[in-house]
Amino acid sequence: MSRILYDLPVSNSIFFNTQHSPIGAFASFTLGQKGARGGLGLEMAKPADENVFVGAESSEGGVFDALPFFGEKAAGRERYDISPTTGPGDVSVLRQWPDKEIRRELTPCRDTWQVKDFEFAIHTPVMPVPDPRKGPREAMKLALVPAVTAEITLDNRKGRRPRKVFFGYQGSGVHAGMRTFQSPGGVIGITQGMNCAIATDAGGMVLAQGFTAPDLLVVENEANLNHAIGAVAMLIGTVPAGKRCRFRFAVCFHRSGRATSGMDTAYWYSKYFPDIESVARYALANFDRVHSRGKSFERATSKARMDANQSFMFAQAVHSYYGSTEFLDAGGKPFWIVNEGEYRMMNTFDLTADHMFFEMALNPWTVRNELDWYADRFAYRDRVRFPGERKTYPGGVSFPHDMGVANTVSPHGASSYEQSGLTGCFSFMTHEELVNWVLCGLVYTVRSGDAAWARKRSSLFAACLESMMRRDHPVPAKRNGLMGLDSDRCTGGAEITTYDSLDVSLGQARNNVYLAVKSWAAYVGMEDFFRRLGKEDDADRAAEQASRCAVSVAGALNAEGFIPAVIGEGVESRVIPAIEGLVFPHVMGLRGCLSRQGRFGRLIRALETHLNTVLKPGVCLFPNGGWKMSSTSENTWLSKIYLCQFVATDVLRSLKRPDLAAAHAAHARWLRDDPDNAYWAWSDQVVGGKVKGSKYYPRGITSILWTGLLR
Amino acid sequence: MSRILYDLPVSNSIFFNTQHSPIGAFASFTLGQKGARGGLGLEMAKPADENVFVGAESSEGGVFDALPFFGEKAAGRERYDISPTTGPGDVSVLRQWPDKEIRRELTPCRDTWQVKDFEFAIHTPVMPVPDPRKGPREAMKLALVPAVTAEITLDNRKGRRPRKVFFGYQGSGVHAGMRTFQSPGGVIGITQGMNCAIATDAGGMVLAQGFTAPDLLVVENEANLNHAIGAVAMLIGTVPAGKRCRFRFAVCFHRSGRATSGMDTAYWYSKYFPDIESVARYALANFDRVHSRGKSFERATSKARMDANQSFMFAQAVHSYYGSTEFLDAGGKPFWIVNEGEYRMMNTFDLTADHMFFEMALNPWTVRNELDWYADRFAYRDRVRFPGERKTYPGGVSFPHDMGVANTVSPHGASSYEQSGLTGCFSFMTHEELVNWVLCGLVYTVRSGDAAWARKRSSLFAACLESMMRRDHPVPAKRNGLMGLDSDRCTGGAEITTYDSLDVSLGQARNNVYLAVKSWAAYVGMEDFFRRLGKEDDADRAAEQASRCAVSVAGALNAEGFIPAVIGEGVESRVIPAIEGLVFPHVMGLRGCLSRQGRFGRLIRALETHLNTVLKPGVCLFPNGGWKMSSTSENTWLSKIYLCQFVATDVLRSLKRPDLAAAHAAHARWLRDDPDNAYWAWSDQVVGGKVKGSKYYPRGITSILWTGLLR
Repeated sequence: MSRILYDLPVSNSIFFNTQHSPIGAFASFTLGQKGARGGLGLEMAKPADENVFVGAESSEGGVFDALPFFGEKAAGRERYDISPTTGPGDVSVLRQWPDKEIRRELTPCRDTWQVKDFEFAIHTPVMPVPDPRKGPREAMKLALVPAVTAEITLDNRKGRRPRKVFFGYQGSGVHAGMRTFQSPGGVIGITQGMNCAIATDAGGMVLAQGFTAPDLLVVENEANLNHAIGAVAMLIGTVPAGKRCRFRFAVCFHRSGRATSGMDTAYWYSKYFPDIESVARYALANFDRVHSRGKSFERATSKARMDANQSFMFAQAVHSYYGSTEFLDAGGKPFWIVNEGEYRMMNTFDLTADHMFFEMALNPWTVRNELDWYADRFAYRDRVRFPGERKTYPGGVSFPHDMGVANTVSPHGASSYEQSGLTGCFSFMTHEELVNWVLCGLVYTVRSGDAAWARKRSSLFAACLESMMRRDHPVPAKRNGLMGLDSDRCTGGAEITTYDSLDVSLGQARNNVYLAVKSWAAYVGMEDFFRRLGKEDDADRAAEQASRCAVSVAGALNAEGFIPAVIGEGVESRVIPAIEGLVFPHVMGLRGCLSRQGRFGRLIRALETHLNTVLKPGVCLFPNGGWKMSSTSENTWLSKIYLCQFVATDVLRSLKRPDLAAAHAAHARWLRDDPDNAYWAWSDQVVGGKVKGSKYYPRGITSILWTGLLR
Repeated sequence: MSRILYDLPVSNSIFFNTQHSPIGAFASFTLGQKGARGGLGLEMAKPADENVFVGAESSEGGVFDALPFFGEKAAGRERYDISPTTGPGDVSVLRQWPDKEIRRELTPCRDTWQVKDFEFAIHTPVMPVPDPRKGPREAMKLALVPAVTAEITLDNRKGRRPRKVFFGYQGSGVHAGMRTFQSPGGVIGITQGMNCAIATDAGGMVLAQGFTAPDLLVVENEANLNHAIGAVAMLIGTVPAGKRCRFRFAVCFHRSGRATSGMDTAYWYSKYFPDIESVARYALANFDRVHSRGKSFERATSKARMDANQSFMFAQAVHSYYGSTEFLDAGGKPFWIVNEGEYRMMNTFDLTADHMFFEMALNPWTVRNELDWYADRFAYRDRVRFPGERKTYPGGVSFPHDMGVANTVSPHGASSYEQSGLTGCFSFMTHEELVNWVLCGLVYTVRSGDAAWARKRSSLFAACLESMMRRDHPVPAKRNGLMGLDSDRCTGGAEITTYDSLDVSLGQARNNVYLAVKSWAAYVGMEDFFRRLGKEDDADRAAEQASRCAVSVAGALNAEGFIPAVIGEGVESRVIPAIEGLVFPHVMGLRGCLSRQGRFGRLIRALETHLNTVLKPGVCLFPNGGWKMSSTSENTWLSKIYLCQFVATDVLRSLKRPDLAAAHAAHARWLRDDPDNAYWAWSDQVVGGKVKGSKYYPRGITSILWTGLLR
C-alpha cells in the first residue's frame, strides 16, 4: 500500500480532498484539493472551505513556499483601515509550490505531501474503540481523543541560512474568532473559538495571528504577531542551517456541553477532555501513541491483495468513514453514531448494514450498540396492505430509516427521512430496515460470539421473523419468500429500498430481487440462529421461508439468463445488486448455503448466471469498464459496487480479482475528478462520471471486504 | 414618532434591515431588506442571510403572499432525489407582496409591516436592566430573557374561506439542522439546533418542516409536515372566515455553556434559562410583559423634538445597539459587553465613551461595570517618549483599546487591536482611552450619585490625572494641557485616536484638537471630582491643566477663524469634532465651564467661531448637506456627527434644530441606501454615500442625546 499515488498518470490528479478525522468526534481536517477547499470542520456536511497554510521558507530566504491549500480570501484589514495609510504586506512573498513538484502518498492512516526537502504528513487513527462497558479509561482516551497528528519535516542540512516553517489556517466560522493559546507543558495553539485547533509543543515554535499569512511570515516587529482581530493564525518555527528538523502538531476538535437536541447527549470524549486545550495537551504529551493509532491497521491491510486503485479507494473510504463517526454519552449510555456524510442522517440503517463489515473487524460492540438503540428507542409496529388495496393486515415490528439528522435525534419510532404517500425517494423502507436489523444482528451474534445478547434479543429476532413473513403474504400457504405487502405507514404509497434515488429497478421494495436475496440471507441466518438456541419451531419457519424465497428468485431466471429486477411485475431491468445479499451467509460462515451443489444450489447458480449475463458493456458495464448497477439507470453507487465485486470474486468466485482492474481504474478516476468530485473526498452516487449525491460519505467502507480482514 | 416612514418619498426605500435584539444576548433577528438578507443571527458580525417566510394565504385561497424576505436558495431536495420521480412542489404558489403595497413603521421598540388585511410586528425590549447586585430575579429575567416578540394579525372578517398564516425560516448554520419542538404549556417551536428559535403558543398553530415553504403550505398529507431533513421550518395557523385573529410568537436565542475563551464566562441569562425551550416558554407565558418592554421608553422618547429623519436614525441606532450587547457571568461577576458591530471587539473603550450617554439614561451600572473591568483586569502602565526620540520618561496608567474580540477575552492589559510601531490604524490609543476612562468615570459618578464608587476609585482617578499630565510634558513648567508624548508601547510609532481610519487630521492623537478638548473636559471634570472629595491638591492640579489646555486650544484659533486639527504641527485640516468634548461638562452639569462669559469663555467662543467657520459647503459640509467630519477626508462618521450636532444645538446653542434638517435628511438617506448600506442596519463610516466600515454598529446611540433623556 505504500507510495500508491506516485505512479498514477498526471491526468489522475493528486489534488483530491481527504478527510483526516479522529474517531467519534464528527470532525474532519479535510485537505488535498487546491485552494480554500479544505480546513477544520466540526459537525459539517462539507469541507470547511478554509485557507490552510503549510510550508517553509525557501532556501534563498525571505520568500515562502506553501502547499497549494489556500486561495483568495478577503484578508479583513480593509474592513478596518478603509483609507489605508500603509498598504498590506507584500503578498508575493508567499508562493505555492508548482503542482508537478509535489508528491503525495495516501494510506488509510497517513497522508503525506513531499516537495524537495519539505514534507508534511497527517496521521489518522484507525483502531478498535474499546467496548465502553469494559474499556479501561486510558485506552478509551487514546482511541477517542479528538485529535489527529501532523508533522512537518524540513531538511535544511544543505542550507546556509535558517529557514522558517509554518502551519496555520484562516477560520471560516461565523461565531467565534480565531485566537491563540498557551497551555501547561509548553503547549501552544491556534484555534477558532473553542472548537478547532492546531497545537504544538515543538521547542522554538511561536504563535502568530494577523490578517494574512504574508503579514505573519514577514513581520518587522515580533510584538505584532498577536493581532487578535486577524483571521489568520499560524504556528511558526525555524530550522537552523545545517539541520533537519521535525515539528509535531495536534489538529484538535472539541464540543463541550450538549451535543444533540431531541435527546440530551454529550460527546463521550468530553468526560476526559473538558476543553480543546486539554485535547491538545493530551495529544502532544502522548504524541507517539496518538500518532501510531493506525499502525497495526496499516500493517494488517497492507497485505491485502488490492491493486493501486483499490488501495486508493479503500484509503479514501476509511478516511471519510471516520469523518462521519460520532460517539456520544446519552445519560451514561454509549451512543455510537455514523452520520450519513453530506446528509448527516444518524445511523441510517441501510448504511449500517454496509458499515457493519468494517465495525465487525474493528469494534463489534458498535454494531450491538446501534441495534440496541434501534430496538429500544426506534422500533415501531405497523399493519400492511397489498398494492392498490385499502384493507390492512397485521404487520409487525420494524425500524425507521435513521435515528435523526444533523445532531437532532428523532422522536421514538420515527426517522427524519420517511414520508407518507410516496412511491419514490423519501418513502418508507420498512421491509429493508427490518431485514437490516436481522442481518446486522445475525452477523454480530455469529462473529462476536456474544451469546448473552443473542439470548436477550431472541424474542425480537422471532418478532422480526414473524414481521417478515406477514409482509410476504397474510395467508401462510400463499407465501413465496418475497415481500408482497407495503407498510400502512406508506398510506397507499409503496416502500422503497436503500436505492432511493434509482428508478424502480432498485427503488421499489416489493418483489425486488435485491431485497429478495437479502431476505433469503436473513431467513437462512435466522434458521441457524434459532437452531443454535434450540428454538426449532422458529428455525423451521425461517428455513421454510428461505426455501420459498430461493425457489422464487431462482425460478425467475429467464431465458435470457437474468432475473428481472422486480420479480413478476414486468420490470425487466437487470441489476447487479441481485447478488448483494450473498455476502451475509458468507460472513456468517454459512458456506454450505452458498454452495452450487448445496441446498440452495439452484439459487446460487441462477445468481451466477445472472451476474455473467448482466456484466456486459451496455448492460451493467459503462464504456470505461465501470460497473453500472442497473441497466436502466445511469446512477451507480460505488459502495455497493465494492460489495458486489467482493461477492463476485470471493463468494461466487465467478470473477478473478485481475478481471476487475479496469473497473477499479474507472471508479478511482471518478473519485479523483478535479475540481468537481475530488472536493467531496469519498462519495457514493455517480452519474455520468460526476458525483451527484451521497457526497463526503462513509459508505465506501464496504471496501473493507477487499482486505480479507473479515475472513 | 409614530408612522414615521409612511411619508418618506419612494426613493427612500423601506426595505432596510433592522436588528431586532434581546438585551445582552449578542443576537439579532434582522429583517427588512428584500431577499435572504436577514434572519436569526447569534454572535454574528453580519445578518444571517436566511430566508424568512412570513405571510398569509390570499383571499382567493390556495395561493400565498409573503413579505419579500426570501430569495432563491437551494431547496435541498435535489441533493437526495437526484433522479426525481416526482417534481418539487409548485413554487408559484408562494408570491411576494408588491413593494408598493407594503407600509412599514419603525420605532426604537417596534417594527411593523402592513399589507392590506395583514400585519406583522416585531417588538423589541428597550428598558433598564436592573443592577445585578440588587435586581430581583424576576426583574432580571424579564429584562434579559433572550427573546423578542412578534405578532401576525390577519383580518379575515370580509373573507369567505379560512386562510392560513405562516412564520418561519430556513436556517443558515453549518452545524446543527433545523428541528421542531413541543414544550409544556402548549408551546411549539422551530429552531436551528439549540440556538435560534421561533415559538408560539397560539391555539391551532401547527409545526411544519420540509424542503421548501411551498411544500409546507400546499401539503396533501399532513403527516408529511414533519420532514426533519428539510431546511425550512414554519409555524402555520388558520384564520376562519369572518374572523380577525392575532398570533403571537417569541423569536428566541440561546447559547448554553461557556460563552468566551480567554476567560471562562456564560451568558447571564443561562442561569434562568437552561435551554431555548425554556426561553420560549417564559417569553410566551409572560407575553404581555415581554412584549411591552419598550413601551415606557417609546413613550418617553416620543416627546423628543426630532424630525422624521432623526426619529428613523435614532430607532435604527437603538436597534443596532442592542444587537451588539452581551451580558455575561464571569464566575459570578457581572460582565457587561457591547460588541463593536461587524468588528465584534468587546467594549472598545472609545465606543464606550459614546455609548455611555445611552447607558446612563437606562442602566448606569453597566458603565461602572465596564470601568471596573478596565480598572481591574485591563489597566496597564507604560513609559512615554517624544516623537523621534528614543529616550523615555515616566508615563502612567492607561487602558487598552478593547477587552477582546468575537468572544475571545484578551489577556490582562492587552487589547485585540493595538499593534506596535505604527502611525495609523491599529496603533495604540493610550491617551484617548485614558481620557475615556476618566470621562466615563466622571459622568457615572456625577449622574449616578454613587459616592462609594467615587471614593473607591479616587486613587485611580488621581493616577489617571498624573498619567495625563506626564503625557503632556515631563517638565511641569512646560505643560500646555495637550498630549505631547506617545506611549512607548508604540515603539517609535505614534498614538492614534478613535478616528483610526481617518487621515492625520483626526487620526493622530498628539496635539490633536479633538483629543485636546476631550482632555480639557477630563481636567475640568476631575477638578470638580477631587474638589467634592476634598482632595484640593489634585483638584488644583486638574484645574491648572484645564486652564493650560483651554489657553492652548483657544490660542490656536487662527486668523481664518478655525483651530487647526493638529495644533502647532502644521496640519491645517478643519474638523468638526473639535467641539465634541464639550458634551462632557454638559452632561456632568458643569454648565459654568461652558459659558461664553465664564472661566473658559475664550475656549468656548473659539470653538463656536471654529464651528461656524468649518460648517460650510466644501469645508465640513457635503453638497447634499451631510456633515463632513474633516475638511481633508471623505470619510465621515454618523455617530460622531450626531454627538457634535447635539453640542452645536444644545451645548453651544450656535445652531437651531431646524438648521439641521437637510443634514438629517442626507444622513438618513445614506442609511437607507438599498441594496448596499441598507443591508447593514445602522452603520457608522460613510465614504461617498456608501458605508465602508463600522457596519452593523452600536455607536449611533449617541443620538440618545437628541431625546433629552439625559438632561
